[in-house]
Amino acid sequence: MNFLEEKILKDGIIKEGNILKVDNFLNHQIDIEIMKQIAEEFCRRFKGEEITKILTIEASGIAIASILALYLNVPLVFAKKSHSVNVDNDKYCAEAFSFTHKTTNNVFVSKRYLSKEDKVLIVDDFMALGSAMLALTNIVEQAGATVVGIGIAIEKGIQEGGEIIRKKGYRLESLAIVDSMDAATRTIQFRKQDC
Amino acid sequence: MNFLEEKILKDGIIKEGNILKVDNFLNHQIDIEIMKQIAEEFCRRFKGEEITKILTIEASGIAIASILALYLNVPLVFAKKSHSVNVDNDKYCAEAFSFTHKTTNNVFVSKRYLSKEDKVLIVDDFMALGSAMLALTNIVEQAGATVVGIGIAIEKGIQEGGEIIRKKGYRLESLAIVDSMDAATRTIQFRKQDC
Repeated sequence: MNFLEEKILKDGIIKEGNILKVDNFLNHQIDIEIMKQIAEEFCRRFKGEEITKILTIEASGIAIASILALYLNVPLVFAKKSHSVNVDNDKYCAEAFSFTHKTTNNVFVSKRYLSKEDKVLIVDDFMALGSAMLALTNIVEQAGATVVGIGIAIEKGIQEGGEIIRKKGYRLESLAIVDSMDAATRTIQFRKQDC
Repeated sequence: MNFLEEKILKDGIIKEGNILKVDNFLNHQIDIEIMKQIAEEFCRRFKGEEITKILTIEASGIAIASILALYLNVPLVFAKKSHSVNVDNDKYCAEAFSFTHKTTNNVFVSKRYLSKEDKVLIVDDFMALGSAMLALTNIVEQAGATVVGIGIAIEKGIQEGGEIIRKKGYRLESLAIVDSMDAATRTIQFRKQDC
């Protein structure tokens, strides 16, 4: 069991309806020691890859992305969300459905901040349906840039996001993959990983 | 002229209506070298203060807050925004009007993440009307915690936020204070500061 799986077992809260709350260390209060370990582990897993930019999506992904950008010494771009966006020539736009909020957002990045030379590592704290990550890969590709990979802290393996993204051929590195959880017994099954 | 004032002059864009766009290094694309310098300068200015927690508000404040939390080795909490919040016993809530978006948001922090023992440094990337910062001080005080100070990267001295906050007796440290700007001549006047 790795540091993040241990932290989830210690501090995560399982709720009915396959909801895992980790807002005491990952997406409301942020445990900076865990952030450092997550960023170090992404550095280790993507070592040897040329990365020119980190891309994430507001809001909670920004914490991990900032520490990782600091370690890799590259700029960070965060995609913005909006219910309505004027799709104009200045922005790359895509749609993303949020499992947490049950809403569809327009996600956009200014064209000035992605170029076809960019080698982009996409990161986020949490992935369920994978809709936000697919929107970000779409945006990177609209820019003609390269998706180096996708780094996720916690993947809900119960939902289909991970499978869709892996089938599309992206390199997806999730530090903890939750394959099942049970609110009644307060148990979580993590997927076994080699690395 | 300090590093941030130089960066604003070099990369900021002045638009009609007293709008200063800094989204190429501060709040859409993030220049990690500038973030490090901002965090180091906050460390210097608040040196000697006991700080147990960094508080910011989503989304763009999270980048500065994360690097600062890393340097100070304390947890970070980011307040969330919502158009509608069930004001319940779990959250501290306050209202904030956004000058940028012309909307009023409910801002909230889970009660679990602020306690009366906390000494809180509030930080954000940008301040105009000061409404978000007043909402955060309100939330800290609802928790019975102490506001150590407020650290802002860019204060629009043209608007009244800074004056209101200083009059209330909070220690406000803004790294660059824009006292006037002119879109036609592309000039910015910064307030002289001692430190």
